[in-house]
Amino acid sequence: MELYSYFRSSASYRVRIALALKGLEVDYHAVHLLKKEQTSPDYAAIAPAQLVPLLKDGDALLSQSLAIIEYLDEVHPEPPLLPRDPLGRARVRALALDIACEIHPLNNLRVLRYLVNELKVSEDAKNAWYRHWVETGLAAFERSLTLPGAATGRFCHGDTPTLADCTLVPQIHNARRLDCNLEPMPTVRRIFDACMMLPAFASTQPSACPDAA
Amino acid sequence: MELYSYFRSSASYRVRIALALKGLEVDYHAVHLLKKEQTSPDYAAIAPAQLVPLLKDGDALLSQSLAIIEYLDEVHPEPPLLPRDPLGRARVRALALDIACEIHPLNNLRVLRYLVNELKVSEDAKNAWYRHWVETGLAAFERSLTLPGAATGRFCHGDTPTLADCTLVPQIHNARRLDCNLEPMPTVRRIFDACMMLPAFASTQPSACPDAA
Repeated sequence: MELYSYFRSSASYRVRIALALKGLEVDYHAVHLLKKEQTSPDYAAIAPAQLVPLLKDGDALLSQSLAIIEYLDEVHPEPPLLPRDPLGRARVRALALDIACEIHPLNNLRVLRYLVNELKVSEDAKNAWYRHWVETGLAAFERSLTLPGAATGRFCHGDTPTLADCTLVPQIHNARRLDCNLEPMPTVRRIFDACMMLPAFASTQPSACPDAA
Repeated sequence: MELYSYFRSSASYRVRIALALKGLEVDYHAVHLLKKEQTSPDYAAIAPAQLVPLLKDGDALLSQSLAIIEYLDEVHPEPPLLPRDPLGRARVRALALDIACEIHPLNNLRVLRYLVNELKVSEDAKNAWYRHWVETGLAAFERSLTLPGAATGRFCHGDTPTLADCTLVPQIHNARRLDCNLEPMPTVRRIFDACMMLPAFASTQPSACPDAA
């Protein structure tokens, strides 16, 4: 398999973690988003949305990090990244989507560019926007993790990493890079620390990527 | 089952379609987002993220529209809303996420409110922002649908509706309400029209909801 990735892309990092948890090796192709390599004709021809990550498995091209991870989990089921029971699966997917739909889309590069280039937003206001969505989103995430009876364990769901952890950890890396306040989210921080003890999360982090600056 | 929904919430509409496709009846509870009913203590107690939709199935509370639809598809498998093969499933999920992660999060009510209230963006600039993300996002979606060899049929994937159609149709309703230009997306428009011929899509549209103005 081949992975098109950018070291700082948190969506790419989600897939790198899942691959590592499953012990799958891939050829790594860097797509430099700041240099806009995602809009090059060669890449756009295989990635219609011109986003990373993209996974090539044989002739098949797969996009969207959460869809890629679900695919990996179906084709390489061990260790599972989703629980066996439908309610547990729904919870893990909802946690992943709480980040993938409610936080990350507001803070990716093309959105920040639009704020600055089109809406003429100041650097300070742009950073306040970034922190607002991270902090309100992670506060909601913390409330979900700590609901009475929630299946939160050492990780977001029980004691083994799932799709939810694959999605949470990259968001925390971004949050720290932008100095977001994670003080009110002790469960989030505890789970992040537990994940980063595992080689699958540590060895695939942005600073460990072949294309890291 | 009980569904907490807002008639104009496109994430709620996704779930309403899925329930209708599966012939499942639910008690409908309206949560009026403009009146900020989602932040009421009663609702916040069951919905930590204070978002709609929310599905109550027995004692279980399920959030995030795509996670809810996957759950419904696992617990009530007929008719299936995902293909049987892993690559087909990955394609349908990626199409749904192309809307749920790349378009919709940028245009929901709380984001538009932030643009106006915090960033003091004009009404015109706010509407231009809205159209920008819808039009660039749907242009990418159209490119995906028309890739050589794509499994696009009468619907987004083959000739029966899937999770991708449940996600596309509400986005098109929003796009039309805000006068987005859908001229360059003939496949998207064709599939939208095919969906709206089906009672499951028509009978659950915003204007048909109990809480429609």
